[in-house]
Amino acid sequence: MKVLIVYAHESPASFNAAAKDAAVAALTAQGCTVEVSDLYAMKFKAAATTEDITGGVKDAENFCYAKEIKLASEEGRLAEDIKKEQEKLKEADLVIFQFPMYWSSVPAIMKGWMDRVLGFAYAQEKRYSEGIFKDKKAMLSFTTDCPESVYSDTGINGDINVTLWPLQNGILNYCGFQVFAPQIFWDPATGSPESRSSVLEGWRTRLQNLCGEASVYFAPLDYFDKETGFLLKPEVKEKYASKESGLTVGIHMGKPLPANSQTKAAV
Amino acid sequence: MKVLIVYAHESPASFNAAAKDAAVAALTAQGCTVEVSDLYAMKFKAAATTEDITGGVKDAENFCYAKEIKLASEEGRLAEDIKKEQEKLKEADLVIFQFPMYWSSVPAIMKGWMDRVLGFAYAQEKRYSEGIFKDKKAMLSFTTDCPESVYSDTGINGDINVTLWPLQNGILNYCGFQVFAPQIFWDPATGSPESRSSVLEGWRTRLQNLCGEASVYFAPLDYFDKETGFLLKPEVKEKYASKESGLTVGIHMGKPLPANSQTKAAV
Repeated sequence: MKVLIVYAHESPASFNAAAKDAAVAALTAQGCTVEVSDLYAMKFKAAATTEDITGGVKDAENFCYAKEIKLASEEGRLAEDIKKEQEKLKEADLVIFQFPMYWSSVPAIMKGWMDRVLGFAYAQEKRYSEGIFKDKKAMLSFTTDCPESVYSDTGINGDINVTLWPLQNGILNYCGFQVFAPQIFWDPATGSPESRSSVLEGWRTRLQNLCGEASVYFAPLDYFDKETGFLLKPEVKEKYASKESGLTVGIHMGKPLPANSQTKAAV
Repeated sequence: MKVLIVYAHESPASFNAAAKDAAVAALTAQGCTVEVSDLYAMKFKAAATTEDITGGVKDAENFCYAKEIKLASEEGRLAEDIKKEQEKLKEADLVIFQFPMYWSSVPAIMKGWMDRVLGFAYAQEKRYSEGIFKDKKAMLSFTTDCPESVYSDTGINGDINVTLWPLQNGILNYCGFQVFAPQIFWDPATGSPESRSSVLEGWRTRLQNLCGEASVYFAPLDYFDKETGFLLKPEVKEKYASKESGLTVGIHMGKPLPANSQTKAAV
């Protein structure tokens, strides 16, 4: 298995660095080939700009980044740094995003990687369960600066499953990735060195069995009807009508959200 | 009233530019002072790095951006571009974020503005209804590339209220901003020139009465108990126990989400 770790922390002494190093070691020991994109070390350009397209944009008047990047990708006219990342991505069977949560999301430098490198995968005709990366797996692995209670459905920051939805559904699932349950390191900074070691040991153990894990559940593309503006088909709505909870966090049908559906694999 | 528009589109001919220009004109006509931070034109640095702190970081070994930026802010040791943006922010009564939605969120360059400029406002002791900007208002104004149905609670992208939660709660509400309902321009690119004009006219009209609008509802800080890890206080849970829906999108208490609570002002 080939693994790409997209990593965003400046300090080699950080817990994020330790989590990344643990993943490299554990996966390599299993015979995986592991590639790391260390975004800060690479000084990765975060802003999605016209400079990402070589040889000029097609429609400067009505410039649309998503359209231009897709076209440039087809014509081999992408900036070198994007091409390099796309080569790594093409090879990878699994992509792990390792980052500290900044403002309920990924740090800007990682959002920049997503905007620029995944840009060409933003395609309405090939998305979700038919997405470009449907044969690949992806997972988020991140640290928070608060304990789990704070991100519960009665906690002050609100349900972590809601916070994860735009990242896991709007980006990873959209591209077709099968999404493994996230690895969440709750507030490692305030733990003892022993608790950090023990958490990292758990991460190593999880990585040993990762390939056998089921992925998070998302509704398949054929549940939706293009003719009605991509709403759930009547027969699907009917099928799930008697269920107490919604289909997913976002496609909740006005019902309670399915519990932990973004943080646990489907069974 | 002083208004800061944080704007992220490269093309002056874009619909986002037109929405920004309409806001500048409509607000200026009302006697507001309007400042625009045109992030692409400014080549705004998106990545949050140690370079944002002048005179060296305090704890290089355990570098934590949030902690360092707060300390540097107190000591006047922030990079010049952050200081300039913070000056604008300090003056502003209202901040409007104008952007095209990229991957269910803001473009990386705007996330960079949030990570770097708002960094110092990430303070557990002063957050949410007691947040640093509690006397200011903020709103998201953005374009999508799909119609509204796609972002409904039975639509393929899932409920837009869920997608907005991390931005509106996790960033704006966290900082204390009173959040106006977002201005969402649904798929302007595929509309006719007439429909775009009419939508912009609606935006101008809204801006004329914006100050009188109520803001989106979020749970106040005193609903949560520090001793239990910032969970809802038992008396609050009891107060809302008989309600059919949750308190907010994220603090849903295992119930259906309150309808349109992130897209409509509280009544």
